Amino acid sequence: MSQNVLLTGPYGRCGTAIIDHLHDRDDYEFTYLNRSDRSEDHPYGRYDTVVADIANYEAIRPAFDGQDAVVHLAAYPYTDGNWGDILRPNIIGMNNVLEAAREAEVETVVFGSSNHVVGRYELENAPDIYDANVDFTVDHTDPVRPDSYYGTSKAFGEDLGRYFVETHEYPKRFYALRICSVRHEEYDHPYGDAEKAVETGEYERGTPEYREAVARMKAMWQSRRDFAHMVECCLEDTSVEFDVFYGVSDNERRWFDIDHAREVLGYDPRDDGGEWDSPPEHARE
Amino acid sequence: MSQNVLLTGPYGRCGTAIIDHLHDRDDYEFTYLNRSDRSEDHPYGRYDTVVADIANYEAIRPAFDGQDAVVHLAAYPYTDGNWGDILRPNIIGMNNVLEAAREAEVETVVFGSSNHVVGRYELENAPDIYDANVDFTVDHTDPVRPDSYYGTSKAFGEDLGRYFVETHEYPKRFYALRICSVRHEEYDHPYGDAEKAVETGEYERGTPEYREAVARMKAMWQSRRDFAHMVECCLEDTSVEFDVFYGVSDNERRWFDIDHAREVLGYDPRDDGGEWDSPPEHARE
Repeated sequence: MSQNVLLTGPYGRCGTAIIDHLHDRDDYEFTYLNRSDRSEDHPYGRYDTVVADIANYEAIRPAFDGQDAVVHLAAYPYTDGNWGDILRPNIIGMNNVLEAAREAEVETVVFGSSNHVVGRYELENAPDIYDANVDFTVDHTDPVRPDSYYGTSKAFGEDLGRYFVETHEYPKRFYALRICSVRHEEYDHPYGDAEKAVETGEYERGTPEYREAVARMKAMWQSRRDFAHMVECCLEDTSVEFDVFYGVSDNERRWFDIDHAREVLGYDPRDDGGEWDSPPEHARE
Repeated sequence: MSQNVLLTGPYGRCGTAIIDHLHDRDDYEFTYLNRSDRSEDHPYGRYDTVVADIANYEAIRPAFDGQDAVVHLAAYPYTDGNWGDILRPNIIGMNNVLEAAREAEVETVVFGSSNHVVGRYELENAPDIYDANVDFTVDHTDPVRPDSYYGTSKAFGEDLGRYFVETHEYPKRFYALRICSVRHEEYDHPYGDAEKAVETGEYERGTPEYREAVARMKAMWQSRRDFAHMVECCLEDTSVEFDVFYGVSDNERRWFDIDHAREVLGYDPRDDGGEWDSPPEHARE
């Protein structure tokens, strides 16, 4: 049965990955919720777009009518954000999305959470944590340790989602995806911040800092198709009321658990950051 | 060595318990942060009071200068609060307190969190959970399950506190006290909501609902002196960076763990809700 799916923040790294991989599937009828209507230039034809600021409840509310699910990705997305950056989009906006889903009786909320909810584990264990021989894993049962206002706002979104599904009739299901590193080929380096730092002159290729940044990216990577697949797993699942999953591919080295996603959602990633070509010679342009 | 301690929300159930039990101790020099100056009528003499709304950063900031610790209790305190009730005092206010503590280099933050951070465990296991023979305990390692906007806002306060102490130089220590039921003799019934419900005609004494409400209160109770002692334990501790403790007395039946507080803080409660006289004959007036 086809589902109506509202996608907030459709033009970011993660939103485009979903549409690129699921646009030709008859199972999903996507509507966009975005601050501007950019659907004229859309590669897969015009998408219905509700133009609204996520922090404005009255403006976003109509977009939720008739939806079976919302994939909520709209947010201030950077860890350097200050309180003023995150309060409206990530905190007030999160409540607006859940309240609108409740009122409009939307069954499923898939929430774009972040590894930064537990980012302190990495910061305190780097760079050892990037080494494939180090035995250190963070899973969905570990306590929250945000590394930023951004990460704290995502932790709040998870808790608010849990309160809504456990207390109200709608939404019925809430999936918190702690997304790690989904890259966008158009504007991201395949080796992520390593190549960006070379460009800005922060360090050179071959230095320890460069190798560390590449190793990190290989461990944190979630390919765009693996991410879209994970979202699809959530949209097709009916077993979860509230749960937390880490968004990474099946990387040779990673410190985030995916066994829980395999068991609960049937997540079956196809990619492995460990198989990337060595930088920089074979880096994709 | 005497400590300067800023107390926000000093006139509530918990703030008055602290002052009633610690006012004559030389170890603490209390300053009040409150929306109004009520210190003229104060039973223990005039307390310095900074009059400010907790949601107004510029207004509260000067109160933090020269403080060694802040005990942050100011909040919208009811589980029936809607988003509009909690956003300013509990979310924006929480950030203001932590940011002011950071700027003013306050070492310690004791945060009045709440059992409602994990309130769903009770709701889903009541009334069995009130029975002394039922083996069910919630401790600091159990996942957050808020039962309300209020509980969610307190979960947010804990996460934000953890972010601050683990990331910034100040504050250095953050204690989240998940307070259960501290009563105030002047305006609370000793049997809590049970007697209140009798007064409003909701049910009569001796009914199953009444007995359940009394059993609940005996399990949730933290005596005022035990609460003040727990705050003192935090103010004297130097071992914790971030931790979570349940604020209950050593009640015969309780489902919240206090072993962690005993071990880490040396919490040594003197009271037990199980020893209360049977209502209503011996209820204190």
